[in-house]
This record gives sequence, structure tokens and C-alpha cells, in this order.
Amino acid sequence: MSTPNQQLNPARNTPGAATDGNPPPVTQSLKSHSLAYLEDAGTGIRVPVTEIALEPSPNGIANQPFRTYRTAGPGSNPVQGLPPFRREWIEARADTEAYSGRERNLLDDGRSAVRRGAASAEWKGAPPVPRRAVEGRTVTQMHYARQGVTTPEMRFVALRENCDVELVRSELAAGRAIIPNNINHPESEPMIIGKAFLVKINANIGNSAVTSSIAEEVDKLQWATRWGADTVMDLSTGDDIHTTREWIIRNSPVPIGTVPIYQALEKVNGEANALTWEIFRDTVIEQCEQGVDYMTIHAGVLLRYVPLTANRVTGIVSRGGSIMAGWCLAHHRENFLYTHFDELCEIFARYDVAFSLGDGLRPGATADANDAAQFAELDTLAELTQRAWEHDVQVMVEGPGHVPFHLVRENVERQQELCKGAPFYTLGPLVTDVAPGYDHITSAIGATEIARYGTAMLCYVTPKEHLGLPNKDDVKTGVITYKIAAHAADLAKGHPGAHERDDALSKARFEFRWRDQFALSLDPETAEAFHDETLPAEPAKTAHFCSMCGPKFCSMRISQDIRDEYGSAESQAALAVAVAGMRGKSEEFLAAGGKVYLPELSVPPGR
Amino acid sequence: MSTPNQQLNPARNTPGAATDGNPPPVTQSLKSHSLAYLEDAGTGIRVPVTEIALEPSPNGIANQPFRTYRTAGPGSNPVQGLPPFRREWIEARADTEAYSGRERNLLDDGRSAVRRGAASAEWKGAPPVPRRAVEGRTVTQMHYARQGVTTPEMRFVALRENCDVELVRSELAAGRAIIPNNINHPESEPMIIGKAFLVKINANIGNSAVTSSIAEEVDKLQWATRWGADTVMDLSTGDDIHTTREWIIRNSPVPIGTVPIYQALEKVNGEANALTWEIFRDTVIEQCEQGVDYMTIHAGVLLRYVPLTANRVTGIVSRGGSIMAGWCLAHHRENFLYTHFDELCEIFARYDVAFSLGDGLRPGATADANDAAQFAELDTLAELTQRAWEHDVQVMVEGPGHVPFHLVRENVERQQELCKGAPFYTLGPLVTDVAPGYDHITSAIGATEIARYGTAMLCYVTPKEHLGLPNKDDVKTGVITYKIAAHAADLAKGHPGAHERDDALSKARFEFRWRDQFALSLDPETAEAFHDETLPAEPAKTAHFCSMCGPKFCSMRISQDIRDEYGSAESQAALAVAVAGMRGKSEEFLAAGGKVYLPELSVPPGR
Repeated sequence: MSTPNQQLNPARNTPGAATDGNPPPVTQSLKSHSLAYLEDAGTGIRVPVTEIALEPSPNGIANQPFRTYRTAGPGSNPVQGLPPFRREWIEARADTEAYSGRERNLLDDGRSAVRRGAASAEWKGAPPVPRRAVEGRTVTQMHYARQGVTTPEMRFVALRENCDVELVRSELAAGRAIIPNNINHPESEPMIIGKAFLVKINANIGNSAVTSSIAEEVDKLQWATRWGADTVMDLSTGDDIHTTREWIIRNSPVPIGTVPIYQALEKVNGEANALTWEIFRDTVIEQCEQGVDYMTIHAGVLLRYVPLTANRVTGIVSRGGSIMAGWCLAHHRENFLYTHFDELCEIFARYDVAFSLGDGLRPGATADANDAAQFAELDTLAELTQRAWEHDVQVMVEGPGHVPFHLVRENVERQQELCKGAPFYTLGPLVTDVAPGYDHITSAIGATEIARYGTAMLCYVTPKEHLGLPNKDDVKTGVITYKIAAHAADLAKGHPGAHERDDALSKARFEFRWRDQFALSLDPETAEAFHDETLPAEPAKTAHFCSMCGPKFCSMRISQDIRDEYGSAESQAALAVAVAGMRGKSEEFLAAGGKVYLPELSVPPGR
Repeated sequence: MSTPNQQLNPARNTPGAATDGNPPPVTQSLKSHSLAYLEDAGTGIRVPVTEIALEPSPNGIANQPFRTYRTAGPGSNPVQGLPPFRREWIEARADTEAYSGRERNLLDDGRSAVRRGAASAEWKGAPPVPRRAVEGRTVTQMHYARQGVTTPEMRFVALRENCDVELVRSELAAGRAIIPNNINHPESEPMIIGKAFLVKINANIGNSAVTSSIAEEVDKLQWATRWGADTVMDLSTGDDIHTTREWIIRNSPVPIGTVPIYQALEKVNGEANALTWEIFRDTVIEQCEQGVDYMTIHAGVLLRYVPLTANRVTGIVSRGGSIMAGWCLAHHRENFLYTHFDELCEIFARYDVAFSLGDGLRPGATADANDAAQFAELDTLAELTQRAWEHDVQVMVEGPGHVPFHLVRENVERQQELCKGAPFYTLGPLVTDVAPGYDHITSAIGATEIARYGTAMLCYVTPKEHLGLPNKDDVKTGVITYKIAAHAADLAKGHPGAHERDDALSKARFEFRWRDQFALSLDPETAEAFHDETLPAEPAKTAHFCSMCGPKFCSMRISQDIRDEYGSAESQAALAVAVAGMRGKSEEFLAAGGKVYLPELSVPPGR
């Protein structure tokens, strides 16, 4: 998205690492990026944007700096965290209270913390004091929107999205969009997830029983956010889950999502059968107090659906889904997340935590796509969406998975119909199973298709999917690949302003402004490095040719000659008339010729 | 595609580098790959396949080896070339003659060869003796097909595609498919391009004025073919063009395409205005005699279309298109490729060279997609398709380019209608311009969409697109990415057998047959390497867990339990009835609830 100047008041900061917060740029092209702010004159609300300085065109005409969506983070010092700038907005509403919260429990960090008497790297910053709604109040953005209240969060989002704040409020009220921002995560910059807005992407991080540390996860958070992740899910399943999350939330400018059943399972030493509603409820409250913004809840995995997966090629592949399926089977009782769903709604309403209704029965192979198990669960997710809305709790619905390309569209259209437009949040989907190592690509293809038809947020897939845990490079590749899918879908939806970055980059390309071409790209570092592999010298960055054709002949140069000769309005108007005439003739010719040369065939084309 | 056993007679060779021809496998997973043959008992025609040995399932049941499409190459010793196995088929038809051919002209290799008195590495193998049709005969596969003749080339293709040979013959006769195989490239293994068959991919290689050598280009040919390129285009524009092409053709098991205007331009020292029909014609004959299988001819760039590009964001981006546009403008005359098109058809008919009708006015930016210039040229390409078919010359039509996702489908549907089903061959298209460095991905998204609706062959795009010349890694990434797009489209089209590889891999995944999962993937080396980054030890490849969940909890294990309990036919039948009942109830609930909670809105959703 670009943000035009006319309706906004840009207040530009001095650029540089200290203000910007990003690691120092490693390439020339990133030096043209700086942090600027759009300011709402009425309220003083400021929204960060990246301002990209551009060189003049070869004809000497200046090119306005290009502004694009970003967070002001992730420039925090990890041990201090980000400033809790949203706290004053929350307190001004006077519908919440600070309280002592749940007591520190070493088991929250797993058995090794109990043994040691501490997590391996306790949070060093200011100890956060949790808040909750005062008794009887609901503090969700959906609630405010339905009351007709326009919050600063909504105004912030409207500035970011370059749209009318009433669109934000009305979409929230209708449940067609959510702003996930727990009152205990005042560091987060409000963002909106809904099909009327820019398509968003989520990056998964988190440790596992096998590998990785707290510092690595904070580093991945900052890295993913730097490249454009709109939300981050902490899917840790190993040691130090509570403390890892604390570090992540305190440093995160984007909403944080979790799957609380993962931590609950750690608390019962990995024995799914030993899970109880009480353990789960306590884990949810723990996470609400920390500031988790949305939680995946697999409440649609009903006992009676489980057998529907028996003859699938890959059964149940969702970790949360299989935990709950295993629990249901072991106890021969209904899923406790379903039976206690209203209690969960009451809790979420006091912190403004959004549901991400998990698709525990999503297909794990293209062979299992759109089957009875998947769609039975979707029916239940639609029912749960309605129940959450009764509590004014924000909801999005998760979707698959592995789906062949021609079956992708049905997923989003069915979800949108059944769930009355609640935001859809999908993992890919992967359109083939044959390319482990390249599943960022197999899934970006499906993600573009599903977002085109209304999916609001895409969960990234990295090259390591199915094979191992992503490292930093994989996180970056996953984020950039999903920025591509999201942006391609914005273009396909005709989202206002989406094409402006494409056009600016294409213009730079046509004019051989190489540095601008790099600077405007989603990954300036890679673009510049690839260029330099063939033509490393600095003069090549202003050269009016490239390594594909070389200096002797250049197609762009010929195009410039054509423009000089025929580009005027008069010659174009004359041409339009002439071409309309030619068209008719050509079609006549074809209509006549077609009958003569095509033999009759018994095999239909394109079987 | 998998090739079932029942109708074919597999004759397996001893596996190993010497027979297989591939470089020795560097990973465990490739050791299970071997070269086998499908044999047509009636004619003795043998078609190579990769046979992938699989381990037994955990329940002890054996898994049949999986067979998949491949070439027998690229195992040649570059200095000898591949055996000309198709020569006997060609000679048996007794409609061609050997002749002395055009004389060796040092300028064919550029000015530096003239200076030196030789190309920098002259072809060392047997000097090829060119053949052509005897006077008055047409030797194209289209001609034979229209005469009702079934050639060995058609039988070879039917075995490869696992389809009836009559489908091959009739699609060729109708012009809806082509088998590009010049009689002077008897080393090539016949393959078919048409929407009734598997989607194919092309890899571009070739040197430029700036960089690279003959040996590198032969190496790229073998590398691209090893990973699955179905055709290769030699787009060389630097020195040694003739000789580079000789080495490539003699070593290529796949059809070779070129853009002869590139070489013609070298012969006039890069001065487009100095080009003549005579120089171009001589270059085409030179390439016909060498064995080029299809040639891109930019005959649709008409003088009157050129001004239509004047107000585009990126003008004319096709190199061939801009050469011809420049020529037309300089001379104020019609494109000589258009005015001499029938002569070209007569030449192509004597060697069985296929047209690839170039889209010289394709959009180079999403802003320019589907515009008047592009579609005016397509009208002319449709006219030229008919004219080539009058000569029984095979034709495919090239397509864009840069096209936003929602406009992609129109491109193929329009081309198919106007060109009466002639195969469409597209470059991507890229669905956004903002990701240089990742254009293999931006274009694979568009490629999957365009192939789904009938595009027959996809020209790959590498990560270096717009930035530099691809190296070996880029070639591999481009090929694998496009194998993904082509296969995803085959799945989406419901192409017979396309899903079998996905299902085999998914089954291996579910059963924790890690080695089989790697071996069945498009890039076993990368899949195995990624797995080993997290869990390198050999036991991990038979472990019943992975690094995502770790050993304590495993969703796949729970799924196995469910299958053991509910997988029988009886319990599934009972379930189907029960679920149908539940569905109704759930829909009732939603219908009632939907009215209560959704406020009326003035802003329409999904604007």
C-alpha cells in the first residue's frame, strides 16, 4: 500500500539506525529507507511508515518519496522491551483494572524449570502488572464498535490502511474484521484482519522439544517483523514456554498468537489423556495476563467427527487437533473446549483476546482436501463463531492446509458463507505434496488463490515445512514469499492503492534507476546482491543496460524512442480509431480461415 | 505422472551412474532412483522412466516401485554427444535426403571468431550431415498426423504420456499439440506440447555479451534436463553462438528452441536497422540444418501496433519485439518476418521446425497487462497460426509476461479461442512487480493459474530475472519451481495419474518412511539436507517422529490409532449416515442465529 500525501500529514524523523531501530542496512539500497510518520491532526495519533527516497527520472523530473506500511518496531533492546504506548488509550476508557494476577508457577516453564527453580533466562524488564475488565464490562474492540464507539485503535488502523475509520468500525461491528490487541499487550501497534483491508501474513516461530533458545526466538520475532510479518505466532512446545513468551510479547510491535493447548500439554508431561478443562483454563488465563492477542482453540474437533478421518491418506495432521481427538477417544467424551466454549468467551471478553478457531481436522494431503471431516468441523466453527459474537468476542477462523488448486476457492467461499464473513486465516494451502523443501512456493500458489477470494490473513510456510524447524533464513524466505502472495491478492482484488508500488518499481526499471528498483522491492538486499553477482561495479547501477542484453542493444532504449515519437495525446487518439478498424478485419479473416483448416475430430480438446 | 504396470512391459536396466548417466547421487535418497524403460511390445520402442524403489510400510506390506517421466539423458560425454537414435525412424520414411548444407561461415560465431579464424571451442564430435525433405515433400509430424499416419515419434510420446496413440495423432492433426523434433536433431526424445497432455516446462540458457562460456552452457543444459526441463531454449547473444548451439544440440535429449533474430543481430554487429530478410533467412536455414526444434519468430509485431506501446509503463520489453519494432520504425516498412511468413513456413516444413510465435509486445509490467498492444498482436498471431497450418507446419503461441492474478485467465482463454486451440506457451506470468530476486515465485503463481486453464508449456523464470544471468543454482531453482507449477496445474486439471505421486509421498509421510518421502520429492537432495539440518543422525530417518513435535507427542501416531479403530468399511458406512443428519441440524442453527447478531451496514463487504 502506498499512502498518498494529500490527506495525511507526514512528520519525518531523522533517519538512521538509532531512530529507525532496524539493524544497520547492509546494502546501498536500504540506505534510502527511513522511518516516517503519518499523523492524524485531530487526535495526534501517529502511524509509522517506511519512506523510500527515490532518484529523479532521466528527464530530470523528481520522483516523490514512496511511503509504505510498516511497524515502528522491531527496534527494541530485548531486555527492556518496547514502550507500552497503547496503555493510555486503554486506561482512558476506565473499564479495566490492574490486579495481582495469577501466581508465578514454575511448571508454566516446564519440568526443567521446576528442577532448576527458574526458567533458563528470566524476563529482566519491568514486571508487567496484568489488567482485566472490571466486573460486568466487555473490553473488546468488537464491543466498542457495536456500541458505535470509535476507539484510538480504530483510528490508528484507518490511518495505516488509508481508509475511512467508519469502514473499520462497521467491519469490526459486523464481525468481518478483527483488531487483535489484548489490553495486556500495550506495546502492540493496532492492525486489522478482514477482507475489506490489506491481506495480512503471520509468521510462526517458537522452540520445540528438540531445539532452540529464548534469545533465538526473540531474534526470529524481530527478524520476521522487520521483513513484514503482520502477526507472529509463538508455537513453542519445549522448555521455558512462559518465559519465552514473556520476552516475545514485551518486544513485539505486532499481535502475538498462541496455541494454548501446546503449553497445557507440557504441564501434563505430554500425556494428552491427562489434560483437563481446569488445566487448560488456567493456561488460558496465564496467557491472557501476559498479553497474548489471539489464541487458536480447537473446539471444533468433536468426538463424532474423529472417525471421519480414519480412511484419510494422512489422518489428522494438526497437532492441536490430534491432541483433542486423542483426548476425546481416550475418555469417550465430548471435546472440553467445545463444552466450555462460553466460559472461554467470558474470559476472552475481559482481556480482548480474539479467537482463532483452529481447524484441527484440516487435510494434511491433497488427497484429503475438502472431505467430510474437514467440512463437518467447519460447520461447528461457524456455530462457535456465532456463540463468540454473542459475547462480543472477536473471531477469526482457521483454514487448510493441503488443497489442490481447483478446490481452493471452495474453501474460502464456504467459510465466508457459513461463518457470515468472519475473517478466514489459512495455512497456505499447499497445492501439491511432491515438493518438500519448496513448500513456501507450493503454498504461496494456494495462498494467492485463497486470498484473492477473501481470505484475510495467510499463515506463512517456510522451506523447512515437513522437514525441520525454520532458521533465520527460512523465516525471511517464508515472510517475503507470503508478502508476495498477499500483495498479489491485493492487486487481484483491486485493493485501493495496491498497484502503486508495482507501478513505481516498474517505472524505475524502465528508467534504469537500478538503486530505486532495489529500494522499492520487498527485499532490497537480495535484489541488489543478485544484480551485483553479474555486474558488480557501482557504475552498473546507473548504466542504461543490464546483463541480459549487454551494452550494444537495449529494448528499453527503443521503447523510449517510441514514446518520444508517439506518446502525445493526439497521436494516441488517432491510433485508437485506427486499431478499432484493424481488429474488425482481423476477426473476419479468422472467422473465414478457421473453417478451412481444422479437421473434424473425435477426441474433444482439453479432456 | 506415474506409469502403471499393467499395460506396459518394464525392462529395467542395471542402475548406476554408468547406465543412468546422471552424476553420482550425493545423498542417500537418490540411491533409490534408477533408470528403467517402458517397452511397446509391438514396435520395440522403449521409453525411459525413473524407477524409485520404496521401503515397505510399517505393517510389512511392500510398496511397489514408483515410476515417473524422465529423459534417458543427460548422461552424454559432451565431446561425443548423444546417440542419434531417431535417425533410423527418419530415414525409414524415405522422404528426406542428406545434402551438403550451408557453408561454414565464421561470422556465424561473431566478429571475434572472424578475427581469430575459429570459434573459441569448435565442435569435436562427428560432423553432422544435414538432411531436408526431398523436393515437394513435407516432413512435419502435423503432416503425417493429418495423413492418418502414426509415426514412431507419436508412439514414443503415447508411451511417455500413458495415453492412447490416437489421442496423440488427432491432437497433432488438429494443431492442438506439437512434437518439436527437427529431423536434424535425431538425438532428441520425442515429447508433446498440448493441453490434453502433461504441462511442460522450458528452461532458458545461453551466453550474453557480458558473460559465460560454451562449457558452462552445455553444463547448464545437462543440469536443467536432469531436474526435469522438457525443452531448453538457447538464448545466446554473445560470441560463439553457432558453435555453442552445436554443442548444445548434440548433447540434448530434449527439444532445443532459439530466437534466430538474436543471432541475426550479432551478424550485423548489433545494428537492428541493418537487418534484412536475406540475413535472417540465412540464419534460419543455418539453425534448421543444425537441428533447432522450434524457433521464436516475432512476426506479430506490426508497424501499426508499435505506437500502441508508447504510453505503457514499460514500453516494449521483449528483446526480439523491440528489435523488430526498431526496424519497422527506422524503415517505415512492415515487419519482414510478417511479409515473408509463407517463405518461413516453406523452410520449416522441410525440416519439421515448429513455430513459437513470439509475443514481442507482451506486457513488462502488471500495469501494461491485457492492453491494446498485447491483444492486437495476439490477433495477428492467430492469423499466422492459420497460415502455418496451411503448410502443415507445427505452431505454438507465446504469451506473457507480467499480469495481475485476476487478469491471467483471460490471456489463455482468449488465445485458445482466437488461435483455435494451438498450444499456448507462456513466460510465467509474474503476478506482481515488487519482488525482484523472487520472480521465480511471483511467476510460478501466475504460471499455475494460466496452466490450469489450458496453457501447454511454461517458460521458467529464475530468481535472477530482471537482475542478472542465472547460474547453475538459479537454473535448478527455476526448474524445480516450474515443475511445481506444472504439476499443480496437472492436479487441478484432473490429469489422469497426476495425483499418484502426491499420494505416494503423502503415504510415505504418514508412515514415517522418511527416505521414501525424500526420494519421491521433486528435489530429494534438498529435502534430505533440510531434514538433516535439524535431525542429522541416520536413526532419525526411520524415527516415528520429527523435529516439529519431538518424540513425546506425535499427531501421526494418534491418527494411526483412529484408523485401527474406525477404518473398516462398516464403521465408515454407519458414519456417513450419522454425519448427513448432523449437517442438517447445524445449518438450521446457523440460519436462525445469523439474523440475530449481524447489524445492518452501509459499507459493502470486500469492496
